[in-house]
Amino acid sequence: MSLAAGLLFASFSQAQEDSVMVRRIVEDILSRGTAYEQLRFLCKQVGPRLSGSAGGAKAVVETARMMREVGADSVYLQECMVPKWVREKKDSAAIIALNGTNQPLRVTALGNSEGTGIIGLKAEIVEVKNFEELESLGEKVKGKIVFYNYPMISSYVKTFMAYGDAGKYRGSGASRAAKYGAVGVLVRSLASNPDDFPHTGAMNYDPAYPKIPAMAVSTNDADKLSAAIKRGGVKQFFMRSVCGMQGEVLSHNVIGEIRGTEYPNEVITVGGHIDSWDLAEGAHDDGSGCVQSIEVLRVFKALGIKPKRTIRAVMFQNEENGLRGGTKYADIAAAEGKKHILALESDAGGFTPRGFGVENSSDTARREKVKAWASLFLPYGIHEFTNGGGGADINPLRKLGTTTVGLSPDSQRYFDIHHSGLDVFEAVSRRELHLGAGVMAALVYLVDRYGN
Amino acid sequence: MSLAAGLLFASFSQAQEDSVMVRRIVEDILSRGTAYEQLRFLCKQVGPRLSGSAGGAKAVVETARMMREVGADSVYLQECMVPKWVREKKDSAAIIALNGTNQPLRVTALGNSEGTGIIGLKAEIVEVKNFEELESLGEKVKGKIVFYNYPMISSYVKTFMAYGDAGKYRGSGASRAAKYGAVGVLVRSLASNPDDFPHTGAMNYDPAYPKIPAMAVSTNDADKLSAAIKRGGVKQFFMRSVCGMQGEVLSHNVIGEIRGTEYPNEVITVGGHIDSWDLAEGAHDDGSGCVQSIEVLRVFKALGIKPKRTIRAVMFQNEENGLRGGTKYADIAAAEGKKHILALESDAGGFTPRGFGVENSSDTARREKVKAWASLFLPYGIHEFTNGGGGADINPLRKLGTTTVGLSPDSQRYFDIHHSGLDVFEAVSRRELHLGAGVMAALVYLVDRYGN
Repeated sequence: MSLAAGLLFASFSQAQEDSVMVRRIVEDILSRGTAYEQLRFLCKQVGPRLSGSAGGAKAVVETARMMREVGADSVYLQECMVPKWVREKKDSAAIIALNGTNQPLRVTALGNSEGTGIIGLKAEIVEVKNFEELESLGEKVKGKIVFYNYPMISSYVKTFMAYGDAGKYRGSGASRAAKYGAVGVLVRSLASNPDDFPHTGAMNYDPAYPKIPAMAVSTNDADKLSAAIKRGGVKQFFMRSVCGMQGEVLSHNVIGEIRGTEYPNEVITVGGHIDSWDLAEGAHDDGSGCVQSIEVLRVFKALGIKPKRTIRAVMFQNEENGLRGGTKYADIAAAEGKKHILALESDAGGFTPRGFGVENSSDTARREKVKAWASLFLPYGIHEFTNGGGGADINPLRKLGTTTVGLSPDSQRYFDIHHSGLDVFEAVSRRELHLGAGVMAALVYLVDRYGN
Repeated sequence: MSLAAGLLFASFSQAQEDSVMVRRIVEDILSRGTAYEQLRFLCKQVGPRLSGSAGGAKAVVETARMMREVGADSVYLQECMVPKWVREKKDSAAIIALNGTNQPLRVTALGNSEGTGIIGLKAEIVEVKNFEELESLGEKVKGKIVFYNYPMISSYVKTFMAYGDAGKYRGSGASRAAKYGAVGVLVRSLASNPDDFPHTGAMNYDPAYPKIPAMAVSTNDADKLSAAIKRGGVKQFFMRSVCGMQGEVLSHNVIGEIRGTEYPNEVITVGGHIDSWDLAEGAHDDGSGCVQSIEVLRVFKALGIKPKRTIRAVMFQNEENGLRGGTKYADIAAAEGKKHILALESDAGGFTPRGFGVENSSDTARREKVKAWASLFLPYGIHEFTNGGGGADINPLRKLGTTTVGLSPDSQRYFDIHHSGLDVFEAVSRRELHLGAGVMAALVYLVDRYGN
């Protein structure tokens, strides 16, 4: 055999080996994965896991136990301070009609918002389609509640584009209205379905303006309110939220590690965020990413794969309303002097995986190295390896030169349930969850084998 | 401009036109589609629609109304006789334990099966893993109930492969066991999830053997029964189903048509099956395919597209337990002397569309002509135009030389809910349903424009 033929043969046989190993990994998880049962526990036995809450603390203990049980070489916590936002009572709101009746609406206080207090807030309500309309009204909203009725745009095929577009009303709508003297805001839920579930999520106050109460209303009730306003039947609006920030408390990232046999100082992380909103079980957001990451450790141990590099499953704390865990992880990573070569996050739901987004703007060759594996993933329905990707928790690692990768599951259903009472275990399909974990584990396997 | 450059320009501008039109069609359906609300009606106001049942008859009336409402030029019925299978009482079954206790299991009679009668059947139960094990037992199963505990294979990425593999136990398990004198069979549900819902579906009797009762048991209870048998704690098994065939009755296919302006005698059909099993609402199987097909008519009318060829949306009758509608449609098509150039069916669930399967074994050039449009569908997440495709209802059209096309949605969730009480409206995502309808309408548009 000539040298050239020998090299070609080696490379061919390597590609074959990779293909066989990827199949073993995915099939093991589809057949024997435990992620789904761990998610059931996280949803049903732990429940909502907002940072700083009792559920949040319990999730730290339980995911640490899960990682020990799947055989991590070591499991440890990283301390981080988190903001403690508390919803103390059930939120409520109602149209006070001209005819004297009250029509209750389904609402939720937005995360991080200060409440109305127990007495509630009663004022005139003004509907605006968007910020342009708010600006044109200006001081006319003074003393009133501003109702942002901006829908997610249905015609975007990728729903995260519609989320990015409409998200500004939830995020900064309160301060934009407070600037003109508004006393409260009501935001149409960031939801892709017409239904009765309000969707919460983080908002932020601009310190230049008063911290006015902010709530979201279900899409069906947003339509109902808008119709009532157009009919001229609305006298006033009532809203009540008893919630607010209560300082900071100690919390933790949870890390499970398999130590590398050859290059223990090169680290590959795979993670999700352990915290969730308080309205449901955080099954898709992001219990799924957590248990999928734990599954990666399990399959390495179960198949006897001894990684050359160190593999860490990281349960990031406080993604939803502060990002303290991701920030802290990157700070510690910078200080500990190990090389974080690649970080993978699953935080777009436990739905059928469709692709990976890969980012390394400082070293595009490393990005391309990952994308070159695309054909190995085709048998599992992974059709897209796109530029640009990561996750809120792992993006801080970019400053260390780490390649960041985000799992891209099918996005059609995500915003039907996201941040609402619908994000429960029953909304997750075992096969979809496990297929996602399978391709994540396969990617970690390849990065470990070939580096980045 | 040279002739060659002129042709190239024409072809480029045609491709651009197609791309713009496909986008208009998909975006209109994502934004203004009515399929989801029509599915809500079909599920909640009509409900289960087994052929020959009152629900089945109501569905004929209501889908005809829907097609008139979206603007079909004509709506008409095709008569066909269908078998009438009736489940008269709630099915039940129980382990009769050695210790004298009864442990009820969740079961359903299989479609087309003859019941045990009101008294029920009590006998020893024998678990077999597969037909090989049955054959090796042979006459030893005489007088006993045979329990086929063959699971769907989890490691197949495409779940329809696992369904095809395991389906034989449901379809012919009863007669295979009756051959050796078994008095009843219990089949592990064809389900991809561990849960408490039994899944029904058609079975068939081989006329050579007695028609013994046949039921399916939920996956969780199949595991429970198997464990009890292994422990040696099972004395007997009790099962009761009061069901059976009650002759044939008149039913109908429902057709809504937009007449072609240039080639009215060339027909393109798009369809789903109107009948469903009786345990739930038949939301995915196949309410989705029906309302998606009606949506194709709606979008043509709404966008003012006047097709050159005749477009028919067809609600096929009796796919689940007889295929009489599909057979009858093809017989009439052969007689009426129009040319059925292409038939598209959606009968794999209203999930995110992933591809199309295309089949024309007698004229592969026509198959390739369809596949050549693949790139137009990439922006909508359609990555696979594969050879081989169609649907149970349209396959009979192949004898007329018709190209058959099946929509391939994501298959991971389908067998979690298929034929069980879980196949309800709430299991359908509006966006997924509408995206599927969008690519179906786009394909019909292209076939109309360029022929096949």
